Amino acid sequence: MEQRFVYMDYNATTPLREEVKARMIEDLDIYANASSMHEAGRRARDRVEMARKQVAALIGAKDPSTIIFTSGGSESNNTVFTTMYELGRNAERRKIITTAIEHPCVLNAARHLADEGFPVVFLGVDGQGRIDLSELERELDPARSSGGASLLVSVMAANNEIGTVQDLAAISRLAKAAGALLHTDAVQAAGKLPIDVEAWGVDYLTLSCHKIYGPKGIGALYMRRGTKAEPLIRGGHQELGIRAGTYNNQGILGFGYAAELALRDQGAFEMRLRALRSRLRDGILAAVPDVRVNGHPTHVLPNTLNVSFPGAEGEAILLSLDLEGIEVSTGSACASGSLEPSHVLMATGVGPELAHGSIRFSLGRGSSEEDVDYVIEKLAPAIKRLRRMSTIPSSACRA
Amino acid sequence: MEQRFVYMDYNATTPLREEVKARMIEDLDIYANASSMHEAGRRARDRVEMARKQVAALIGAKDPSTIIFTSGGSESNNTVFTTMYELGRNAERRKIITTAIEHPCVLNAARHLADEGFPVVFLGVDGQGRIDLSELERELDPARSSGGASLLVSVMAANNEIGTVQDLAAISRLAKAAGALLHTDAVQAAGKLPIDVEAWGVDYLTLSCHKIYGPKGIGALYMRRGTKAEPLIRGGHQELGIRAGTYNNQGILGFGYAAELALRDQGAFEMRLRALRSRLRDGILAAVPDVRVNGHPTHVLPNTLNVSFPGAEGEAILLSLDLEGIEVSTGSACASGSLEPSHVLMATGVGPELAHGSIRFSLGRGSSEEDVDYVIEKLAPAIKRLRRMSTIPSSACRA
Repeated sequence: MEQRFVYMDYNATTPLREEVKARMIEDLDIYANASSMHEAGRRARDRVEMARKQVAALIGAKDPSTIIFTSGGSESNNTVFTTMYELGRNAERRKIITTAIEHPCVLNAARHLADEGFPVVFLGVDGQGRIDLSELERELDPARSSGGASLLVSVMAANNEIGTVQDLAAISRLAKAAGALLHTDAVQAAGKLPIDVEAWGVDYLTLSCHKIYGPKGIGALYMRRGTKAEPLIRGGHQELGIRAGTYNNQGILGFGYAAELALRDQGAFEMRLRALRSRLRDGILAAVPDVRVNGHPTHVLPNTLNVSFPGAEGEAILLSLDLEGIEVSTGSACASGSLEPSHVLMATGVGPELAHGSIRFSLGRGSSEEDVDYVIEKLAPAIKRLRRMSTIPSSACRA
Repeated sequence: MEQRFVYMDYNATTPLREEVKARMIEDLDIYANASSMHEAGRRARDRVEMARKQVAALIGAKDPSTIIFTSGGSESNNTVFTTMYELGRNAERRKIITTAIEHPCVLNAARHLADEGFPVVFLGVDGQGRIDLSELERELDPARSSGGASLLVSVMAANNEIGTVQDLAAISRLAKAAGALLHTDAVQAAGKLPIDVEAWGVDYLTLSCHKIYGPKGIGALYMRRGTKAEPLIRGGHQELGIRAGTYNNQGILGFGYAAELALRDQGAFEMRLRALRSRLRDGILAAVPDVRVNGHPTHVLPNTLNVSFPGAEGEAILLSLDLEGIEVSTGSACASGSLEPSHVLMATGVGPELAHGSIRFSLGRGSSEEDVDYVIEKLAPAIKRLRRMSTIPSSACRA
């Protein structure tokens, strides 16, 4: 097979869809400040409001005013935690419950609240990456745990590294029963799974546009009507006073269109990706001896396959594949460059050495069966070579 | 003269330059996550670093690593004030000195620190919009003012509504002598005036890309080397850990190119705009009786003309001009929709009624002598008609 370029890092980011790109190029001339009172400003504002409806529809939100545009997922998540700081700093109800496998921005925002004296609990996960609902229930009960009444439960809808999907409806029932707010980071779930803020019963939900084939630098925070939010960025009166700053017309309009297409295509996309993922998993299992597939076998994103290769080192695998034109990752791009093993894999009980020998394959719209077969073909000899060179005994990695 | 479309609201936002637009369309395919380790990620990262150099050059910063990319001016300004919160919350040195005419995002961020118990002073300005350096010196002296030692002086380089330019080099000398940090919001100065962070002696400087004919949703914070910053958005390790979130490739690359062009053209642009501004000012003074030009006669942005029309109401003027295809504003777009008179004009001593009858004309790259003459031609009868209809006596407005 001749050299191909195979991008399998769609969880890090996605290219613009051709339709979104074409629309964005048309819209590059919509430059007026959407807060301006003149005709050009009002026209820009109308387009922003249309995009807001498109984004609301993607997550089943009936009221578009529940959507606040932000600069991305990290800002949305930080806005929720800043809000919790304001709500909890002088209140009895201030316990924060999140998980050990959240994205770095939730983890760091939660650690910051811990530094500020908030009781913060990071729930562990089982070997497949799901939280234990009875542990959540115990932590929500002040009589059976420390830290008092809970202010917030923050659990990601689907994990970015291993793809494990949580049972948000069940989590919501427990959180509501205890009077806590519920936030979910749905950055990786959006477009890949159906999202329904009503069925999930969430109060806050985070979205990022660049994960659904739209532009970078734009995201959203869903806030259930009546829910409070504290501005992270203070200033003008934009976005109900919750998010100041001139409207990013291009980003917002691109987001709206990407959301509309993601909603339209979600079912077929999910089915096609699930088949490709199975082909990749089965192909790797057949071609490479002694591997471990991480994450949940069924409650998993349709596009995400995380595999550990005992006796090989993740960055070496990544670079070997890179030379063959294959782009994958060892985990979150937001954590890359770090020498620490994946906190997500570690939380599932994978030891540090095995965690260091793991690769995230994330498929997407451009992925084909040929891509999958090419990856399998190139991966098998690479792992064999690296294992031969490795000083790490394969068995030690399974500790 | 037949109907034209005349945009004179360049201080609210600017259209994309054709060259930037063309480059951005080319760059829409650079989608990889600039934090990814693979080849595509490294290529994206190289482009981000090239843009960082271009932005650094615009403000005379020798070290590109002093530039932190943000989602815009409001985020940059808020990052500075969040940093002051962390630096000052448990310190003796915590007084904040800013001005009464800052952009709403600085004012609101400063008010938030006041709510947190910080001593915050909003310096007044003279009738032309400049701060009094002896008043600043007094406020910086704990022996002659309240609030203790000063942590930060934040003074905008040029005002967005009236265009008045402050003497930053002098302000810097006073701030440094008192051991305070200096921040300037240079969003409106960039591209219109030469900026030199060394000559100005600033520690933090805020930029926004959409005011210099580049894309929206992207800005920067200059931080002198060795200066501290506290993340507003926590998460990944991007931007030295100061600003988490996936790199907005398109925004950043567009910003870099817009900055390069702004630097190249600044001198000629300033000269051309200054001539157009004079033509507009002289034309209005000749065609409309009883008007007041606000701001400083010489220390003023080359493109900004703020005029009060006693006996006419600002929004009515705006809508009359809008019908003629002329887009202007009554003040900051970030404050539009508000019924309050301009805080900037009020600070210069303009009474509330006259402040309500003021228009900001802001010229830009697309402005021509024909545009200026068209505005003058349409403005004179509009003011005459509105004054006839008005219930506000013209004389009362000059109080």
